Amino acid sequence: MDGAVVEAVRQSAPLIHCITNYVTANDVANLLLAIGARPVMADDPAEAAEITLAARGLCLNLGTLHSSSVPAMYAAGAAAAAKGIPLVLDPVGAGSSTFRTQTARDLTRALRPAVLRCNPTELAALAGREGGGAGVDAAPADRITEANLTDSAPRIAAQARELGAVVAVTGAVDLVTDGTVCYAVRNGRPEMGRVTGTGCQLSALLTAFLSVRPDRPLEAALGAVCAMGLAGELAWGRMAPSDGNAAYRGRIIDAIYHLSGQALEKGARYEAIPL
Amino acid sequence: MDGAVVEAVRQSAPLIHCITNYVTANDVANLLLAIGARPVMADDPAEAAEITLAARGLCLNLGTLHSSSVPAMYAAGAAAAAKGIPLVLDPVGAGSSTFRTQTARDLTRALRPAVLRCNPTELAALAGREGGGAGVDAAPADRITEANLTDSAPRIAAQARELGAVVAVTGAVDLVTDGTVCYAVRNGRPEMGRVTGTGCQLSALLTAFLSVRPDRPLEAALGAVCAMGLAGELAWGRMAPSDGNAAYRGRIIDAIYHLSGQALEKGARYEAIPL
Amino acid sequence: MDGAVVEAVRQSAPLIHCITNYVTANDVANLLLAIGARPVMADDPAEAAEITLAARGLCLNLGTLHSSSVPAMYAAGAAAAAKGIPLVLDPVGAGSSTFRTQTARDLTRALRPAVLRCNPTELAALAGREGGGAGVDAAPADRITEANLTDSAPRIAAQARELGAVVAVTGAVDLVTDGTVCYAVRNGRPEMGRVTGTGCQLSALLTAFLSVRPDRPLEAALGAVCAMGLAGELAWGRMAPSDGNAAYRGRIIDAIYHLSGQALEKGARYEAIPL
Repeated sequence: MDGAVVEAVRQSAPLIHCITNYVTANDVANLLLAIGARPVMADDPAEAAEITLAARGLCLNLGTLHSSSVPAMYAAGAAAAAKGIPLVLDPVGAGSSTFRTQTARDLTRALRPAVLRCNPTELAALAGREGGGAGVDAAPADRITEANLTDSAPRIAAQARELGAVVAVTGAVDLVTDGTVCYAVRNGRPEMGRVTGTGCQLSALLTAFLSVRPDRPLEAALGAVCAMGLAGELAWGRMAPSDGNAAYRGRIIDAIYHLSGQALEKGARYEAIPL
Repeated sequence: MDGAVVEAVRQSAPLIHCITNYVTANDVANLLLAIGARPVMADDPAEAAEITLAARGLCLNLGTLHSSSVPAMYAAGAAAAAKGIPLVLDPVGAGSSTFRTQTARDLTRALRPAVLRCNPTELAALAGREGGGAGVDAAPADRITEANLTDSAPRIAAQARELGAVVAVTGAVDLVTDGTVCYAVRNGRPEMGRVTGTGCQLSALLTAFLSVRPDRPLEAALGAVCAMGLAGELAWGRMAPSDGNAAYRGRIIDAIYHLSGQALEKGARYEAIPL
Repeated sequence: MDGAVVEAVRQSAPLIHCITNYVTANDVANLLLAIGARPVMADDPAEAAEITLAARGLCLNLGTLHSSSVPAMYAAGAAAAAKGIPLVLDPVGAGSSTFRTQTARDLTRALRPAVLRCNPTELAALAGREGGGAGVDAAPADRITEANLTDSAPRIAAQARELGAVVAVTGAVDLVTDGTVCYAVRNGRPEMGRVTGTGCQLSALLTAFLSVRPDRPLEAALGAVCAMGLAGELAWGRMAPSDGNAAYRGRIIDAIYHLSGQALEKGARYEAIPL
């Protein structure tokens, strides 16, 4: 585990451009500030490329996808590609509408993101399956668990190869793979699913890690997935009896605020899975 | 009081589609997750109907109304009507601009929401009064209090009959009526008005309740109004001396997270008002 | 220090119209409610002017600037000017893209805001400098510190004269000037920069103060800058060891909720700087 990535972010304070949804944009911004990065949100086609060119990472999130922001995503993505700025795509809700599925596929094909961060239903939609989603959660049949891990890992790895990206698929067990190597991550708490936007936050955190490790997307993704899950565990340990998902939301961000590379190395729970 | 509605939501985890405002969307999503429902926000006309068709409830909220999302509201509403998915309309700010008033009236007429959740100024605008509003709060002259309750209840009930919907009007005293029966609810705290979005959250909670009680909109509305007010009371009891409206915001959602049907039945304070 | 401004806001509960960004809109609304004002957010050109006409202050914020909301800003600004409603402009990110810089300059020229609340990089962009920004933070070379204060104050004052507005520039030291008198404010904490939207909140607070002191923009700006910084200090004093920027975010708003005019007068730390 490359714990030094945490201090690398804190020391260089990378600017991260997010074209993201309005439901969780505030949490995404505060999560980036918590890890020591600097967020900028700008989704008008008139400036998206110019904003990206000053940034060190680009995160595209389809949470509340608008027709008007799609051209901004293409412009930002093209600018990122031209300048070698790493791109993370979070295809929120792919599989739940034709518009999202098609937009997510087109963006993936055109922009070649370094990392796709999503759930298994969204990944299946990207990889060509029609439908299968409802809302923004993984369909029950798609969820990755200890019971289906041995079967799931090769399938996810094959999708990563097909899509030409590192894939970080989250759920009860998270899988991080470049198609050749596959890690299973067992950090995190099921209660994180009761806080809106923990997935969006992870995608942003991953972009921050990737911005200081542009040549190591697999390691950056693994580190971010472990870090976010670990933050969920640490935050859960600080919950008072009357606390609920609103308190948990803040405590997770606060755990990232205090996270050190050493704590990440010590707390990360992952293993390579044979493919 | 149908306290079992709480467990019915928690057990079935209904998907609730919200076309809502960006000011309070995060709180609305977390409130829905707190009660055990699953939120999805999608407001592009290209997908609004398709997203609704997979949901069990639809909540339209005019908080930051955009011309571009109005067609999405119609498309989603038509899909909901076609499939029997219950619709809640929260006409935020009706009466404060011609655009909002007209849009709220047109949506009500075209989509026939099962429940209207609003304040008395917004309801009067829906029922045909011109102007009268400023911002998103009830005008002082419109507010329902103990002093004007006997006069207010028949007027609100008449508006409910005219609009053909269950109406849940909130204020110092809340009124919930289908035009025939009218309940006064005395749960809640005045300080809830110092937290942005408690009304939006109530509308979403009501949609979740209605999604598991589609044939009983009056009971679903009564339950949600009592539950939200009760959460405000429980949360207030947990305030530390230096806490303000930001802490209160989180504590209200956390109170919903821990709410049981039994606690709702025990804490609900309502009575039928003669019309 | 005009501490009575706090009670003036609490007693009159002014309606404040914000055309603002979706990243921090919720915090801006809760900050306004914390001080006792009433927020309304409405950014569709179809209603922006009408909403402004009912308000006592207008705050335009370019945080997530959209081409579609620019006409709303002009319409709202024109309505404010026609009715003598004070206007605050927060040109977030001016200097970081041509679109933002040009929009911010055009708005300033056309609408003549009473107060510009920004960072030194954004102010320089308004005053004619090309480029120089990246993201939404001040460029390192532009930051105002104790070391460069003597040189910075006359430059900021000259820009205020040129732009014909009171200017409130925030950073390690804040400067508030109408071009003739210049105050340095030393309230605040560096950690406030780790919470997204504290600048946006300050702009809204300033608008609330200005709404009850429309003839005294310099004093209103000075009061708001001191109040926001003082809230940051008080909130920092209440941080628990595991708290981070998410907890800090809420505690700052809560400190405003409890702020009195007397506490503001006692806690304000400012001095006039010779120009």
